[in-house]
Amino acid sequence: MISKRQIKIITSLHQKKYRKSTGLFVAEGKKVIQEFLNSNFELDTLFTIDEHLFADDSKVTLISEAALKKISFLKTPNKALALFKITKPATIDSKGLIVALDDVRDPGNLGTIIRLCDWFGVKHLVCSEATVDCYNPKVIQATMGSLTRVNIVYTDLKNYLTETKLPVFGAFMDGSNVYQTQLPTDGILVMGNEANGVSDEVSNLITEKIAIPRFGEIQQTESLNVAMATGILLSEFRRA
Amino acid sequence: MISKRQIKIITSLHQKKYRKSTGLFVAEGKKVIQEFLNSNFELDTLFTIDEHLFADDSKVTLISEAALKKISFLKTPNKALALFKITKPATIDSKGLIVALDDVRDPGNLGTIIRLCDWFGVKHLVCSEATVDCYNPKVIQATMGSLTRVNIVYTDLKNYLTETKLPVFGAFMDGSNVYQTQLPTDGILVMGNEANGVSDEVSNLITEKIAIPRFGEIQQTESLNVAMATGILLSEFRRA
Repeated sequence: MISKRQIKIITSLHQKKYRKSTGLFVAEGKKVIQEFLNSNFELDTLFTIDEHLFADDSKVTLISEAALKKISFLKTPNKALALFKITKPATIDSKGLIVALDDVRDPGNLGTIIRLCDWFGVKHLVCSEATVDCYNPKVIQATMGSLTRVNIVYTDLKNYLTETKLPVFGAFMDGSNVYQTQLPTDGILVMGNEANGVSDEVSNLITEKIAIPRFGEIQQTESLNVAMATGILLSEFRRA
Repeated sequence: MISKRQIKIITSLHQKKYRKSTGLFVAEGKKVIQEFLNSNFELDTLFTIDEHLFADDSKVTLISEAALKKISFLKTPNKALALFKITKPATIDSKGLIVALDDVRDPGNLGTIIRLCDWFGVKHLVCSEATVDCYNPKVIQATMGSLTRVNIVYTDLKNYLTETKLPVFGAFMDGSNVYQTQLPTDGILVMGNEANGVSDEVSNLITEKIAIPRFGEIQQTESLNVAMATGILLSEFRRA
């Protein structure tokens, strides 16, 4: 059973301010929920229409399909919805490869970038304060659970980049050819906003501007999407 | 003005069978339409709510916002909608770098892969017959016009790969580390279906199986999305 009050709280969680005031976020579907259950995230409540969906059924609240439809953020609700507690991020390491985002706004892009960090063993993702919230339901679903393995910190990006001792690389359309650039093991890769790229203020803090060269004869192609460019650049950092 | 009959034809074009019977497809928004106007594609009809949107207004049919809403496939209609004629694909070159898709089903993935081909100068994209149609409206919008610069051929992939003299590379989870693989200038890169990867029948025709290695300590990450993997692998082919 689910109360009217619970429904109201859950549906409010698509808004960042309610996630902040309650300290909760929503994860949906067996696969994604299971990844959070296996991680350090603390479960608050787990609703499902199938009591045998999870091995440990002691934590489960059985609800109707109609109730799930009311609380789900998905077009096609996916058998289970859970509330987890937002965790406090860890301190950012001063070594290793770190990705920093300067106002990435699209939840799908952030979700893809979190998956890429996980794939390429990037443990820390530093986000400017205007970057889309990683507990946004669309981000959570797009990460497929990889958010449990990447430390995501929202902070003043300019301060962070001013204070770091690591070399700071940034993706720019007019940067130097990344294939001809010596890439270190320890460093920060800054990726910019979908429409405007890296902001002028952050640009001033970049040690080396890099670009993925175009190979087409006709140089009209739209720039690569920010998530795609992050994937290709992380591959370049890691292949070395 | 737009007739009821025209509305009926246009709205039918989200289905492949009507695109096939009419030989027409839909492109929306100034940017995408302009790319097709600048290309070899032949315009059939161009509807817009703003007669000054295109430099050459002789081709334009002015319609109301209400009419545009009726014919648009977008949630938020984008000022203009055009019908273009489907072109017959060119013969596939027997040299250069070619991408082949084995049943890629998601329009967004195909659109991203077409953009990547354009970016990395891949002139031919060979698709199995079960791959999503490149004139699907979602593909057209996702390609941002780069479809005008890539020759896309739907064919029996097994026949094509049997007959080609080029080396055939394929993306497999258990393939050899792509960073340690010698990649040629001329060759075919086969990418598989979102859920099932490369089919068994096509697998038998692969000369070399390659993979993008994972770098995370915990090896639980979902495999990379097919479009992301295509981007990273094309970057590897081109950087050499």
